[in-house]
Amino acid sequence: MPLVVQKYGGSSLADADRIRHVARRVAAERDAGSSLVVVVSAMGDTTDHLIELARQITRDPDPREMDRLLVTGEYQSSALVAMALHTLGVPAVSLTGAQAGIRTDGSHGRARIANVDPARIVREIGAGNVVIVAGFQGSTADTYAAGEVTTLGRGGSDTTAVALAARLRADRCEIFTDVEGIFTADPRVVPEARLLPVIGYEEMLELAHQGAQVMQVRAVELGWVNDVEIAVRSTFSDHPGTRIKEDPDVEQRNKVRGLATDRNVAKVTVVAVPDRPGIARTLFVPLADAGINVDVIVQNVSHDGTTDVSFTVPRSELARARRLLEPVVGEMGARELTADESVAKVSIVGAGIQNAPGYAARMFGTLADEGINIEMISTSEVRITCMINEADLQRAARALHRAFQLERPEPEVAAAR
Amino acid sequence: MPLVVQKYGGSSLADADRIRHVARRVAAERDAGSSLVVVVSAMGDTTDHLIELARQITRDPDPREMDRLLVTGEYQSSALVAMALHTLGVPAVSLTGAQAGIRTDGSHGRARIANVDPARIVREIGAGNVVIVAGFQGSTADTYAAGEVTTLGRGGSDTTAVALAARLRADRCEIFTDVEGIFTADPRVVPEARLLPVIGYEEMLELAHQGAQVMQVRAVELGWVNDVEIAVRSTFSDHPGTRIKEDPDVEQRNKVRGLATDRNVAKVTVVAVPDRPGIARTLFVPLADAGINVDVIVQNVSHDGTTDVSFTVPRSELARARRLLEPVVGEMGARELTADESVAKVSIVGAGIQNAPGYAARMFGTLADEGINIEMISTSEVRITCMINEADLQRAARALHRAFQLERPEPEVAAAR
Repeated sequence: MPLVVQKYGGSSLADADRIRHVARRVAAERDAGSSLVVVVSAMGDTTDHLIELARQITRDPDPREMDRLLVTGEYQSSALVAMALHTLGVPAVSLTGAQAGIRTDGSHGRARIANVDPARIVREIGAGNVVIVAGFQGSTADTYAAGEVTTLGRGGSDTTAVALAARLRADRCEIFTDVEGIFTADPRVVPEARLLPVIGYEEMLELAHQGAQVMQVRAVELGWVNDVEIAVRSTFSDHPGTRIKEDPDVEQRNKVRGLATDRNVAKVTVVAVPDRPGIARTLFVPLADAGINVDVIVQNVSHDGTTDVSFTVPRSELARARRLLEPVVGEMGARELTADESVAKVSIVGAGIQNAPGYAARMFGTLADEGINIEMISTSEVRITCMINEADLQRAARALHRAFQLERPEPEVAAAR
Repeated sequence: MPLVVQKYGGSSLADADRIRHVARRVAAERDAGSSLVVVVSAMGDTTDHLIELARQITRDPDPREMDRLLVTGEYQSSALVAMALHTLGVPAVSLTGAQAGIRTDGSHGRARIANVDPARIVREIGAGNVVIVAGFQGSTADTYAAGEVTTLGRGGSDTTAVALAARLRADRCEIFTDVEGIFTADPRVVPEARLLPVIGYEEMLELAHQGAQVMQVRAVELGWVNDVEIAVRSTFSDHPGTRIKEDPDVEQRNKVRGLATDRNVAKVTVVAVPDRPGIARTLFVPLADAGINVDVIVQNVSHDGTTDVSFTVPRSELARARRLLEPVVGEMGARELTADESVAKVSIVGAGIQNAPGYAARMFGTLADEGINIEMISTSEVRITCMINEADLQRAARALHRAFQLERPEPEVAAAR
C-alpha cells in the first residue's frame, strides 16, 4: 500500500467548509488505496492572531512560552481535520508534533529537526488510521518528563511534511497550498507567468530564498538532501502542480527557469567605516546571532582609509537590525548608519546560469533598455539578483520574463517527465 | 514559605489587560512571601468558540479529538499569564495539565482525576518559579508514550485547583472569579442578597447543585473529602470573599444559609407507563450513561395499572434526553413523553434543614401566600427544592429571602471566624 504524506496550509484550512473539503481530498486518496500521513498548519490567520495576543502582553515574550502558545494553532486544526474525516467514515487520529516523534534542538521559535522517531505514526498507520500531524513543531524530548515543545519557524509545516516523508520513505510527498504550483514568476507581478511542471531543488531553493513564498526554504533543502520528490499543488483543483526533484536534463533546456521578486527588502549602509580587517565579522555576527538574514553585501573601494558597506535585510527586520547595529557602528568609528526601504530585488534563477555569461549580459541589458537603474548585484551558481527601486519592480519583472521567453511552454520531453 | 494555589476563571483572563491584572495579583502574593501554583481557565469565551468550531464540522465529534481541541484554550492562557509575569520580573513557567501531573481516567469530556503526580511542580517551585497550570485537563498517562489528554468537564479548572491544593498540602486555595463570593441568593434575581463570609461544604454543594454556578460541584466535593479550605474571591477587588470550610458552629446559626435558583430546567413526563418493577432503571440508566443529570423525580400513584413518571433534566440537555428516551418509551408500552420548558427551581439550603420541619412549612406557606403553585418538591439533608413556573421565579426568590431573613448579617461569632 503506497504511503503518501500530504501537507495542507493555513489558507486551505481557514474555516469549517475548507476543513471538510480537505477531509474529502484525504478520503479520496485513501479510497484510492493509500496510507496517509497528513500534516496541517494552523487555521487561516490563527498564528498571526496568537502573536498579536502575545504582543499585547509583552514586546519581548519568553521564547519557551511563545512556542507553547503558538503550537496550539496546529493542535486545533489537527483535531478538527480528524473530526471531519470521521464524518466521512475514515478512521483518523491527530497527533502533536511531539507525539509524531519530531525531535528538535532547543532553539525556541526556530528549532531544527534533530531526528524523527516514527514509532507512534507507524503504530497508528498499522491500526488503519489516517494520521493527522500538527505541523510547525516538535519537542526536545518526551515533553512529559522534561522535554519542551518547540516551533520550526514560519512555514515550518512544510519542513515537518518533508522530514516525515524522508523518515517514513513515503512514496509521495504533496504540499497543498492556495496556488497551482511554482510559476516562472509571481503571477501578481507578471500576469503572463507560466506554471512549471518540474523544477530542480537548487533552482527552487533560489526562488524561495529570493522571495517566492510558496515553500519554506528549509523544507526544500531537506527534500534535496534526502532525495524526497515534492509535489506543490493546489488544494482547490486537481492540477498535478509542480514537482520539485533532481533534474538531470537541465542542460537540455532554457537555462533561466524562473524569476523571483521580493519587496520585503531594505538596504542598510554603514557610512565611512575605518577600513581594517574584521569589519564584516563585527557587523554581521550580531545579525546572524539574532537570526536576521543578510543578503547582497557590497563594500565600496576606499580612497581615504574608510569604506562604505551596504547590505540588505528583510524590511520586516529593519527595526531590529538597527537596534542591534547602532551601538556597533559607534564602536567601529563609522560615521553613520543609513537605511533605504524603497528598494526591491528581482532575480533570474536557473541551473548553471553563472557558467553562461550571456544571461547576465541579457539581464543587465534588458533593465538598461527599460531605463531601470541597478543599485546592487549579487550572484550564485544558479541565480543573478539585481536590487532596484521598488517602483520599477513590476516593469523590470515583466521585461525580464519576456527577454528570457519564460512564457513559452517547455519542450515536450520535460513536460512529460 | 507558605504555598498558595490560586485559580483564575475565564472572565478574569478575557483580554490582555485582564491577564496583566491577574499577573499583578500573583506578583503581589509572591512579594508577600508565598510560593504559588496558579491554575487558569481558557480566556473569555474561547472554549465556547472551540465547541462551536467543532459543531460546524460535526454534530457528533469524537470525544478524544474534542478533548485535544478544547485543552488548547488553557494552553494559550497559561503561556500568556507566564509572559505577563515575566514582564513584572517574576520567574514563571507554564505547564499543561499532563505536565502538572494530573492523571485521570479515560472518560473524555468528563474525566475524573485518579491521582496527582506533583514531581514536576515541586521541581519548578524549588527552582523559584511561579507555576502556571492549564486547568480543566489532565492525561491518562504520559501523553508521549501512549497517554491521551482528557478534560474534566465544564468548570473543571476549579477541580484542578482543589486537587493540586490537596496533593501539595497548600496553605491556601483561592478561587478567583468575577463575583465577590457566595451570596445568600443570586444577586441578579434577589438584589438584596448578602455575601456569606463562611459556608459549609455540604451547604455549598447543594447551592452549586441547585444552580449557583460560582463553583464546580466536584471541586467542592474534593475540598470536603480532603479538608481543603477554599476561598471564593473576586479578581477585581481585595474583598476576602467567602470561605468554604467545615462549619462546626452550624447549629448555632440561622439554619437557612442561602437560596439557589435555576432556570436551566425542563420537566419531562412519561405518561401512562405500565406499572411494573424496573421502570426507574429503564428510564434513568440511559440518561446516567449519557451523563445527563436527573433531578426531582416524582411518580404518581396509579389507579388503572399505569403510572406517570415526571423528572427534571437540565433544559440544555432536553433534546438529547428526548432522543435517548423516545425509543425506550415505546418499548415500555408508555403512551407518550411530554416536556415542559417553562419551569424553574428554587431551593433553600442550610445544614440540618430536614430535621427542622418548620422550615419546609415556612417555605411552602411563603409560596402559597404569593399565589405561586408548586409543581414538584424534592428534599435532601440540607435542602428543600420546589419546582415552580419560571415566570414566578424572581417573586418566589425575593419572598423566600425575606421570609428566612437572609438579608440580616450573621452573628458576629460567625463573621469573625
